Amino acid sequence: MATHAAKHALVYGGAGALGRAVVAHLRTLPHWTVTSVDFAANPDAHRNIALPPLPPNWTAAAESVLAATPGELDAVVCVAGGWVGGHAGDASFVQSVETSVAQSVQSSAVAAHIAAKRLNPNGLVVLTGSQASLSPTPGMIGYGLAKAAVHHLVRSLGAGTSAGLPTGATALGILPVTLDTPMNRKFMPDADFSSWTPLETVAAQVASWAEDPSARPKSGALVEVVTKAGVTAFTPVKE
Amino acid sequence: MATHAAKHALVYGGAGALGRAVVAHLRTLPHWTVTSVDFAANPDAHRNIALPPLPPNWTAAAESVLAATPGELDAVVCVAGGWVGGHAGDASFVQSVETSVAQSVQSSAVAAHIAAKRLNPNGLVVLTGSQASLSPTPGMIGYGLAKAAVHHLVRSLGAGTSAGLPTGATALGILPVTLDTPMNRKFMPDADFSSWTPLETVAAQVASWAEDPSARPKSGALVEVVTKAGVTAFTPVKE
Repeated sequence: MATHAAKHALVYGGAGALGRAVVAHLRTLPHWTVTSVDFAANPDAHRNIALPPLPPNWTAAAESVLAATPGELDAVVCVAGGWVGGHAGDASFVQSVETSVAQSVQSSAVAAHIAAKRLNPNGLVVLTGSQASLSPTPGMIGYGLAKAAVHHLVRSLGAGTSAGLPTGATALGILPVTLDTPMNRKFMPDADFSSWTPLETVAAQVASWAEDPSARPKSGALVEVVTKAGVTAFTPVKE
Repeated sequence: MATHAAKHALVYGGAGALGRAVVAHLRTLPHWTVTSVDFAANPDAHRNIALPPLPPNWTAAAESVLAATPGELDAVVCVAGGWVGGHAGDASFVQSVETSVAQSVQSSAVAAHIAAKRLNPNGLVVLTGSQASLSPTPGMIGYGLAKAAVHHLVRSLGAGTSAGLPTGATALGILPVTLDTPMNRKFMPDADFSSWTPLETVAAQVASWAEDPSARPKSGALVEVVTKAGVTAFTPVKE
């Protein structure tokens, strides 16, 4: 196998369940340096950038992360997020929208900006959407609309240089159904785990896209991550 | 013509250009009472609710507007919004996303919550999206993703009672291309105005939907508003 040039990935949300899996996978590839961005440090990363505490000031968060980000990046992976349920009649509805927007849209916007400013040509930016948001989500309206906004961001970034990305860069959205996290096992102990996607499977796919531009779907693609009977398929949504 | 029962509309963003047109049109119908919600008062409305000053606290805005909102409503029309350009590499990109989310998503979320809490059965809630957001918007990424979030909110509200709306209520999105406002005339003086949609045309369509449930598209519909050679068509997007 050919030797690899040194590469650098930034994982936004790198101390969360999926983030730790992505950091861990990239750490198995000796030519990758990994920086984690999160509220807490991930000791497995080479370098950590601490997010300012909530409530978030969007511009301040972007500026502080950008200032702390190493000069050149080959991959920006945003796996920050969270889940909030609720419909429009709930007393906490507007709060649920605000929380979901902060968790998913703010993090994705900052990650997109870092990608635009720091990615090398042919770099990769991956944002995390949700398969559920391809349809109406009446029982989790705030979460659904925030992920729909992330999907639109990915599609816009797919325009490439006119969206502010460097030449040859690829923007992809990953749209999981249910990830097999300790938190989901705790709250849904009776679910069919064979339809949940292992974190390592997602991490390996993202790393593969980061390694090899020719392995990537078309820039701007929203990639459904669907697991059935323990087998996971990554399928770009038809436009 | 049959006499009409007294009806009450709340126009969120009622002091803006489109909001004033909607208020003015409903005022021509003697059985409608109109409440305007905005930062500034609209003297043409029967009643005004003042929004708290920016920067917005989402929950506080929702609670204060809800507390000031009259008991029962037949229509909630959210025409608050704004426009911000910019791509992911702009220094102000993250700010542009935050601004667009505050202008379009926050206002729509509060309006949806008021609709859920206060609409009568068979009531109407109209939110304002953008035809541009049906496609990628690399030159106005924040605006585009915020309107995409509003579209998803409309689609979720289309689920009806499971989304928190009262029985028989209809949620619609209006997706204009360019509205013929004084501001747009000022900044695009050389445009083809025959492809711009007159505010009164939108106001009349919204009032017609408010008046007559049988005139409405299916709940959850995103209705494109396209004007060609001075003729405007309102066409639900195919799902």
